[in-house]
Amino acid sequence: MDKLFSTTEKYLRELQGTICNSLEEIDGKQFLTDNWKRKEGGGGVTKVIVNGNIFEKGGVNFSSVHGMMSEDVAKQLHTSPQNFAACGLSIILHPFSPRIPTIHMNLRCFSLEKGKIWFGGGIDLTPYYPLLEDFKHFHKILKDACNSVVENSYKTYKKNCDEYFYIKHRHEMRGIGGIFFDYLDGNEINLRLAKSVGDCFLNSYMPIVEKRKDEKYSPGDKKFQLVRRGRYVEFNLIYDRGTLFGLKTEGNIESILISLPTEVNYIYNYLPRPNSPHSVMMKYYQPANWI
Amino acid sequence: MDKLFSTTEKYLRELQGTICNSLEEIDGKQFLTDNWKRKEGGGGVTKVIVNGNIFEKGGVNFSSVHGMMSEDVAKQLHTSPQNFAACGLSIILHPFSPRIPTIHMNLRCFSLEKGKIWFGGGIDLTPYYPLLEDFKHFHKILKDACNSVVENSYKTYKKNCDEYFYIKHRHEMRGIGGIFFDYLDGNEINLRLAKSVGDCFLNSYMPIVEKRKDEKYSPGDKKFQLVRRGRYVEFNLIYDRGTLFGLKTEGNIESILISLPTEVNYIYNYLPRPNSPHSVMMKYYQPANWI
Repeated sequence: MDKLFSTTEKYLRELQGTICNSLEEIDGKQFLTDNWKRKEGGGGVTKVIVNGNIFEKGGVNFSSVHGMMSEDVAKQLHTSPQNFAACGLSIILHPFSPRIPTIHMNLRCFSLEKGKIWFGGGIDLTPYYPLLEDFKHFHKILKDACNSVVENSYKTYKKNCDEYFYIKHRHEMRGIGGIFFDYLDGNEINLRLAKSVGDCFLNSYMPIVEKRKDEKYSPGDKKFQLVRRGRYVEFNLIYDRGTLFGLKTEGNIESILISLPTEVNYIYNYLPRPNSPHSVMMKYYQPANWI
Repeated sequence: MDKLFSTTEKYLRELQGTICNSLEEIDGKQFLTDNWKRKEGGGGVTKVIVNGNIFEKGGVNFSSVHGMMSEDVAKQLHTSPQNFAACGLSIILHPFSPRIPTIHMNLRCFSLEKGKIWFGGGIDLTPYYPLLEDFKHFHKILKDACNSVVENSYKTYKKNCDEYFYIKHRHEMRGIGGIFFDYLDGNEINLRLAKSVGDCFLNSYMPIVEKRKDEKYSPGDKKFQLVRRGRYVEFNLIYDRGTLFGLKTEGNIESILISLPTEVNYIYNYLPRPNSPHSVMMKYYQPANWI
């Protein structure tokens, strides 16, 4: 196996542990662990938290699979069916409190028998309350993580993210973006970039959780969050390539749909009260410079 | 304008009124009315009920639009862009009580400048509790409505429906089916069929609402309903051609997504308790002969 791939795999496996430890410490509830094997080769470790003290639903899922790719996968990768190996770490956390944003991270490495190897991934934030200092903090950490490895790369990956997490029919983003990259050549620099992104996850998110976890919120705040969670579902089920690909290739449904929050509302013609914090928040679901 | 089309349009417009009157009578709450015009030609009347006594969310939407079709529409219809006229009545009702099923009906007529005209539509039921006599009643009414116009047609349209409202990644149906047809030649017989289906809507559903509306239910019944509503959303956002087409062609989002119930739950690894009514109900989300 390619050394770059195995280094990444080891890194992601360890990162899963580190991140789960931190999340368990702040939440006070343990993750459930589900080890699974893939018939065709490989497997993974699904870590799930449900009804914690802070997190209503969350998953930190590591997988490393290999074998012969299906026609479907080959088609999506614009190549011919061949042996492949893929490892990844996927995180999604839906807190109860609308003061704490939902966060999503994905890091993956894909290696083809015929020599090609690449990285993909990103982190993005979906807040429900206009706490601008948190948004700035989040983007600042991501910027440093990217630019410390590849000069000016944050700008590109931020733009990718703004474009990817866009709910076209609503003309708005799922959240306030972050970074997103794909098909990054499998070389040492990009491995460092992937690690830098993985390493910054806790710094980007935990200070926000720490700061907001005991803040009071109103029923109106909760309602806005439940409606925005509906938009999150709309994005994931209509546009998210990973979700649709997973479902259509008979992946593990529960692991894939861990991204959907427990409680969701679809309210006809919902409009936040003018001049409310929620109506202010609506403006931030558009691409913006946060730093 | 084609006489068949204008007859259908008039029929659907009147049917909207008849159905809304019956629903208002049983619910006790009035529908909100939203008249809208389409810039390119035509318009519609959206009737919405929110937080009624029986219905948590529902829409009875009539539309009649015309003009030059877009490239997208032409492509979907396997034809070249040309003038068209389309009228339709769309109904979706999500009751609060898990003892009352969600119901959906759609009837539409499409007419092309170059001469072709056809009908499409159907009715399907999504129950949340195994009340088999209700399922039988529903299918019996549909069967009579179809077969009284075209011998043996129920069998075909029921099969279409079982195939269409299938959640492929779950290997289960959205509900217990009903009937579904499309591209039915615009002739007098099929107009009679469409009318027969429209006319049977109230008979297929109202006796169930009447019988179940005061029945008590448990928190477990409600939870099962909220989870199944999640499946309803999965189907509508991933597979439903009308929903996706509407969203991608910049239709009125609120009217299109009136099909999504207000309160929805996505529970990780949810499994109904063995031998519970809900676990029994799960078996019925597969194609079956109800009569």
